[in-house]
Amino acid sequence: MSESVVVKDLHEYTTGPVLIPKTPHPITGSKYPVTMGHEFSGVVVEVGDDVEHVSAGQRVVVRPTIFDRTCSSCIKGIQHCCDNIGFIGLSGYGGGMAEYIVAPAEHFYPIPDNVSLQSAALVEPLAVAWHAVNISPFKPGDNVLVVGGGPIGIGIVQVLKVQGAREIIVVEPTENRRRLSKDFGATHLLDPQDVDVPETVLRLTGNIGADVLFDTAGVEGALNGAIPACRAHGTIVNVAVWQKRPAVRVNDLMYKEVNYMGAALYDNTSFEDVIKAISYGQLNPDKMVTSKITLSEVVEKGFKSLLENRDEHS
Amino acid sequence: MSESVVVKDLHEYTTGPVLIPKTPHPITGSKYPVTMGHEFSGVVVEVGDDVEHVSAGQRVVVRPTIFDRTCSSCIKGIQHCCDNIGFIGLSGYGGGMAEYIVAPAEHFYPIPDNVSLQSAALVEPLAVAWHAVNISPFKPGDNVLVVGGGPIGIGIVQVLKVQGAREIIVVEPTENRRRLSKDFGATHLLDPQDVDVPETVLRLTGNIGADVLFDTAGVEGALNGAIPACRAHGTIVNVAVWQKRPAVRVNDLMYKEVNYMGAALYDNTSFEDVIKAISYGQLNPDKMVTSKITLSEVVEKGFKSLLENRDEHS
Repeated sequence: MSESVVVKDLHEYTTGPVLIPKTPHPITGSKYPVTMGHEFSGVVVEVGDDVEHVSAGQRVVVRPTIFDRTCSSCIKGIQHCCDNIGFIGLSGYGGGMAEYIVAPAEHFYPIPDNVSLQSAALVEPLAVAWHAVNISPFKPGDNVLVVGGGPIGIGIVQVLKVQGAREIIVVEPTENRRRLSKDFGATHLLDPQDVDVPETVLRLTGNIGADVLFDTAGVEGALNGAIPACRAHGTIVNVAVWQKRPAVRVNDLMYKEVNYMGAALYDNTSFEDVIKAISYGQLNPDKMVTSKITLSEVVEKGFKSLLENRDEHS
Repeated sequence: MSESVVVKDLHEYTTGPVLIPKTPHPITGSKYPVTMGHEFSGVVVEVGDDVEHVSAGQRVVVRPTIFDRTCSSCIKGIQHCCDNIGFIGLSGYGGGMAEYIVAPAEHFYPIPDNVSLQSAALVEPLAVAWHAVNISPFKPGDNVLVVGGGPIGIGIVQVLKVQGAREIIVVEPTENRRRLSKDFGATHLLDPQDVDVPETVLRLTGNIGADVLFDTAGVEGALNGAIPACRAHGTIVNVAVWQKRPAVRVNDLMYKEVNYMGAALYDNTSFEDVIKAISYGQLNPDKMVTSKITLSEVVEKGFKSLLENRDEHS
């Protein structure tokens, strides 16, 4: 199995259990300790009697989201906002950091022959990016500001490129990440320590401002600093998980009637669409992989290395 | 001239100049001191040579919003989000607390015979309420939560009633205001000091939550306390002007993919629609008037009285 170590896992490693349940999870019945890893692909070893859509030997990616199907969100068809949402790799059913896992068949998605297992392991974070763009009012030709050039930010840049954005402006303080953002299609890179972000965005957009802004950073100063870069009736999509509640400049949002909306996870269709987009060559997750480690190295070369170089990788 | 004293004026009186310009306003060229009063009606005394839509002797209500017509918002047709927005009564052209004012003809709207000058003086705050409902995704049959039962909250309750809301739940700590809300069409009144707001809203909406929530209070605890009362993919409309930036529970907004949008002022159409709605008997601003004072009493019986009983009136 291949997998990617991400912020959620790091957060569990340093200060968990956070999402990992302390009492039995209402759907899986599991509680900590659990095997982590919720972004992973692999090869099917065995299937249950009634399973038809995957078979032994098939290469698959695992959709980790677990829904109760009974809450008001699930009944309305918004399963990814389930009141009791769980994740394979955080809430039970094993996880990507085990050699084998057993989970309900619906979580396994076959991958096309031209998609590597490594690429498939990145379907999950790319589905977050894909979904965020899709539920936003973004349309081809829009000017977009992406705050933060981490994995989700880079994912959003790729999706915007595929979907026909005009200017894709990335605000990111780390040089390494700015470079990566450019590789994936960003048209302008702003170091917030060097330039006035709203002033620059206004200049780059004919004095109008960004049509849509994606916040992947979850940093109060970055959010408030970016609000004036958004046009009247524009939209700010929050994709970040916040460690601390931000004191938001609500009056600034209001006077321009800006929409501040949350994008959480992804619906099942986005997950499937990302697999197709990788297969079609529209998304290129292989380029996002900066290094590979084995399962036995996950603490030393995974968690600890990421923590030491948090600015570079987290 | 009749007029209503409102929160904006109070704020200018206690801590101004706030909106009143300290340097010449880019459109009017005026700076403090200015004559206040931006919600008012009156009788036309004289018109300029080219003015055709109003004439001497006609009863009118004044739309106070002043636009520059050149900023990117104005060019996009979103004049009420003008970068340099001004208000008669705050930014120059006189104000409702003068015996006479002179202003460009476009600000004067004739009122139908069956609309009193007193009612017409409340068109402005009702236009705020009308616009907030109209730019929200509210549709007939929706369950709505209104946070705050002040003048704007009561206005929103009336508009929701006219437009066919199912449950109109008002959260308001002051008994007097809860009673007023009920008079205007609220179906349920919650005292946040007595009940768990989200739990009660869920119970009243078949365990789904409010479809749309209007925040007219601008109080951090009230906003954060109400977020869990909103359904997944629901909308929170901020109509409040915040004195202090709230530390918003953004993660809670995100996991339910709730839209947090700002509603600022009103477009010109909303202003006209409110005049019609009053004439048709759909809105009843006369019932909102709790007392009347003369112009010479405005400090003692207006500002000072309101400040002493802020919970009751502001």
